[in-house]
Amino acid sequence: MTIEDMSSSPWAPLSDANFNRTIIDRGINLADLACLPISTGWFGKKEENRRLIKVQCYSLQGTANFYMRPIEGLTVLLDLDTKKVVHISDMGRDIPIPKSENTDYRYSKLNNKYSKVRLMKPISIEQPKGPSFEIEDGHLVKWVNWEFHLKPDPRAGVIISRAMVRDPDTGELRNVMYKGMTSELFVPYMDPTDAWYFKTYMDAGEYGFGLQAMPLDPLNDCPRNAYYMDGVFPAADGVPYVRSNMICVFESYAGDIGWRHAESPITGMGIREVRPKVTLVVRMAASVANYDYIVDWEFQTDGLIRIKVGLSGILMVKGTPYVNMNQVPEEEKLYGTLLSENVIGVIHDHYVTFYLDMDVDGPNNSFVKVNLVREETSPGESPRRSYLKANRHVAKTEKDAQIKFKLYDPSELHVINPSKLTRVGNPVGYKVVPAGTAASMLDPKDPPQMRGAFTNNQVWVTPYNRSEQWAGGLFVYQSHGEDTLAVWSEKNRPIENKDIVLWYTLGFHHVPCQEDFPIMPTVSSSFDLKPVNFYESNPILNMPPNFEEDLPVCRAAASA
Amino acid sequence: MTIEDMSSSPWAPLSDANFNRTIIDRGINLADLACLPISTGWFGKKEENRRLIKVQCYSLQGTANFYMRPIEGLTVLLDLDTKKVVHISDMGRDIPIPKSENTDYRYSKLNNKYSKVRLMKPISIEQPKGPSFEIEDGHLVKWVNWEFHLKPDPRAGVIISRAMVRDPDTGELRNVMYKGMTSELFVPYMDPTDAWYFKTYMDAGEYGFGLQAMPLDPLNDCPRNAYYMDGVFPAADGVPYVRSNMICVFESYAGDIGWRHAESPITGMGIREVRPKVTLVVRMAASVANYDYIVDWEFQTDGLIRIKVGLSGILMVKGTPYVNMNQVPEEEKLYGTLLSENVIGVIHDHYVTFYLDMDVDGPNNSFVKVNLVREETSPGESPRRSYLKANRHVAKTEKDAQIKFKLYDPSELHVINPSKLTRVGNPVGYKVVPAGTAASMLDPKDPPQMRGAFTNNQVWVTPYNRSEQWAGGLFVYQSHGEDTLAVWSEKNRPIENKDIVLWYTLGFHHVPCQEDFPIMPTVSSSFDLKPVNFYESNPILNMPPNFEEDLPVCRAAASA
Repeated sequence: MTIEDMSSSPWAPLSDANFNRTIIDRGINLADLACLPISTGWFGKKEENRRLIKVQCYSLQGTANFYMRPIEGLTVLLDLDTKKVVHISDMGRDIPIPKSENTDYRYSKLNNKYSKVRLMKPISIEQPKGPSFEIEDGHLVKWVNWEFHLKPDPRAGVIISRAMVRDPDTGELRNVMYKGMTSELFVPYMDPTDAWYFKTYMDAGEYGFGLQAMPLDPLNDCPRNAYYMDGVFPAADGVPYVRSNMICVFESYAGDIGWRHAESPITGMGIREVRPKVTLVVRMAASVANYDYIVDWEFQTDGLIRIKVGLSGILMVKGTPYVNMNQVPEEEKLYGTLLSENVIGVIHDHYVTFYLDMDVDGPNNSFVKVNLVREETSPGESPRRSYLKANRHVAKTEKDAQIKFKLYDPSELHVINPSKLTRVGNPVGYKVVPAGTAASMLDPKDPPQMRGAFTNNQVWVTPYNRSEQWAGGLFVYQSHGEDTLAVWSEKNRPIENKDIVLWYTLGFHHVPCQEDFPIMPTVSSSFDLKPVNFYESNPILNMPPNFEEDLPVCRAAASA
Repeated sequence: MTIEDMSSSPWAPLSDANFNRTIIDRGINLADLACLPISTGWFGKKEENRRLIKVQCYSLQGTANFYMRPIEGLTVLLDLDTKKVVHISDMGRDIPIPKSENTDYRYSKLNNKYSKVRLMKPISIEQPKGPSFEIEDGHLVKWVNWEFHLKPDPRAGVIISRAMVRDPDTGELRNVMYKGMTSELFVPYMDPTDAWYFKTYMDAGEYGFGLQAMPLDPLNDCPRNAYYMDGVFPAADGVPYVRSNMICVFESYAGDIGWRHAESPITGMGIREVRPKVTLVVRMAASVANYDYIVDWEFQTDGLIRIKVGLSGILMVKGTPYVNMNQVPEEEKLYGTLLSENVIGVIHDHYVTFYLDMDVDGPNNSFVKVNLVREETSPGESPRRSYLKANRHVAKTEKDAQIKFKLYDPSELHVINPSKLTRVGNPVGYKVVPAGTAASMLDPKDPPQMRGAFTNNQVWVTPYNRSEQWAGGLFVYQSHGEDTLAVWSEKNRPIENKDIVLWYTLGFHHVPCQEDFPIMPTVSSSFDLKPVNFYESNPILNMPPNFEEDLPVCRAAASA
């Protein structure tokens, strides 16, 4: 879909008299209508050979947060090219439109309300001598021990490429990752009814994760010390346009500790050595209609890359006749949580799949599963009966590297360079430190799951292939799941000592709660790419601590 | 053990001529000796009826980091009361003591070395108008919407009690947690040989997690804007002593986002509303000999409490004759990773078990498992074949609430107040959001695991009982596992609508890597206590954004 497709489709139903009549019959002024273009997905039928889209509408009356005022049950199927109405499903006329009260979230509409919590005094991250990074040629970021190329992309949002880290012993720049990006998202809602079953979004391939990234708010999306980068994308007619302040880059210091040791009262040596932890963050926030995804690539001086996804924005909610749980019959299926009168937050999952072309000290790498297993001792061997042992297994082909995490069969997952050993003979590597491990539990034969089959495993490894970058396929809109990561991986190609791509899916199950109404506090999850025997020793051993005399001198703002 | 036990035991072997002889025979000057008191654990034998301790030694020659220079295989068993040697196990004489080079971590020993990475410019968190919290009577912390009591404790380290949060709608203070603390730790090493099998530490009950918490470094352990609190503890003779700056309290701002929404190009409404995220952190760092544990209790304005444990400090390592992996025979068991010449980092686990006496809007609460299960649709019901459904199950007795996490049987775990419903009829509650879910895989019949049986599950719920606060038992040293959480929970007492205690274990498997040598970059994990239908709606909806005119005015320090 182009931006033009997305922004014109919602208005198309207004050319249909039946549509206008049902809107007016439901007591809604046509001028208060806000409608959304919803990707249709694919549901196992032979589809007509044309581009289709569904449109659902909301009432804007009394609030900017129309998402909380669904016109439930009304779904218009449009031809995406002609913008003609193909079908109107007109159900749910008995479901009231939820009230507008308490749904607006704009500060200008709220700030005269009495707040019963005490206010916070100003706080900020300050760097009066400026940032420690430079950006060369507009895209090459250099910070402490890191160098990488940063690019806004209409589909992936942010692309990090040629990430290299300087070795503290040799001073050399060493390759870590050739390219890293958000490859695809899969967001299935858990409601099989007429107006909801098709909500199984793939936000990168269908809507464009970068196309939906809006300008960042300079004092709130990123701290005051941030640098901003614009995106330049082609419109549908080929003319370039600028998306200003789409990405920010900043140094973060949260008061965390890089490393520390104090000698305890046991030895009484009086040693206390502590190093503060400062990181470099690259951030983008994509607003795919209601939802806001905050994507951070965080670089640490110890060589670690943390990839974090925050979910905020507004829920996609469903209208209901109920105003209290005590009205809901035992057998009734809500498919979610009653969040407010007549508003249900429908259960859904979020899967964000990352493409990580790792090049640890060069392109040819191997993927190693280090399995932790219980070993029982022989009788008389030890007063202990058991201990854990680490068994290394080098994955030979793709199927060896289709990983579903199991808590009671734990393993570390390493990408190593088998041709490069440390001084004492360990292969240099990086490991994936998982989190956000929610796994898709849909029926694998369910059409949405066939399209989102790249979430069948949490980790996959494929040999580099320039046509395999988008986990849901190159063309995702109305796709049938014939060109996904799951299909490619079934080829079971060799991956040992090859240029390999690691795929990681960060997963969230979201059972909404009232705190998510009318706008959601951010929920975050992250995974790490962490050096494992990549360095000869702790690479931040030589970093200095903070000294009082180096820190800035600040005063309260004149206005305060 | 008292601090006096711990600090006197390491010197006791010097009164034994055989001990001194083997030290000298190994080429070590007695003046260079550093020894550690190591809890003996219990290994299923009928023990002598006396207090015992083991002592192992290291060479301090050429480094303050003696931990990297083990005198491998030499273990002295002492009577802890008389300090007399009971037995000396004198093995490993053929294992060289690792070199001292590159092991020291003190800045004063490093700062004249050429650093090949570029330096960082000063960065700090600034609050020129001061913090937004007050501490009344030395212990009652009041910050934005939170109030809680904070106490240093010799065994638990930090105790948070009577944590209450102000409701933005009513202005009332609402109870969340009556008491929260680190109850016990369990740190089994995974090496069954003579000098290692007994390393199965329980750091709170054996060493005193608070007793090991040393004064924090004001500019590096906590940011510049921190407030410090002292601990006052009794010495063995009953005389109180002060542990200064044991706990810090500070506001943190990392550049994160509390909530946001921008209207996308789809609707083109030009809305962008973002709120920065500032949190309050309570921190302690315990140095249990080599290891440093950083424990954070982080309070958020949205009602969330994040409990985070960071691991840093120094590994407990093992001497080995090998200097390179190419010397290690295929069948040889290293029990860990070769980190440097003659140094093995032994695999181990860390389990940190928290006692959380939740009082959500009052003492009587219930524990609810919200299981997410796949529901298949009936033929013809929907174009979808499957969706996820949330099934609620209220735990009646303790065994209903013994939880081992499973990724493919996911559930949310709620502590609710069944007597208090929201406006639309949901029970008010808090949920546990797990992370750091490594589970103990030792044989449940292994004596260390019997003592550490509180790690048999990741979550337990017990009815409040004042004698059940220490998960490993009131008396842990040389205990036989007869008084653990696992034993209490087997009583299977009713827990529905009772004053209940939630127990959560944060687990880490640690397979050391070279980056951990000679001192470890911090590894952190955290879990959350998060409001779930506790508030009627987003409690931070009314928080203001940052405005430029409120932020501080800073300049570089004069010296810089």
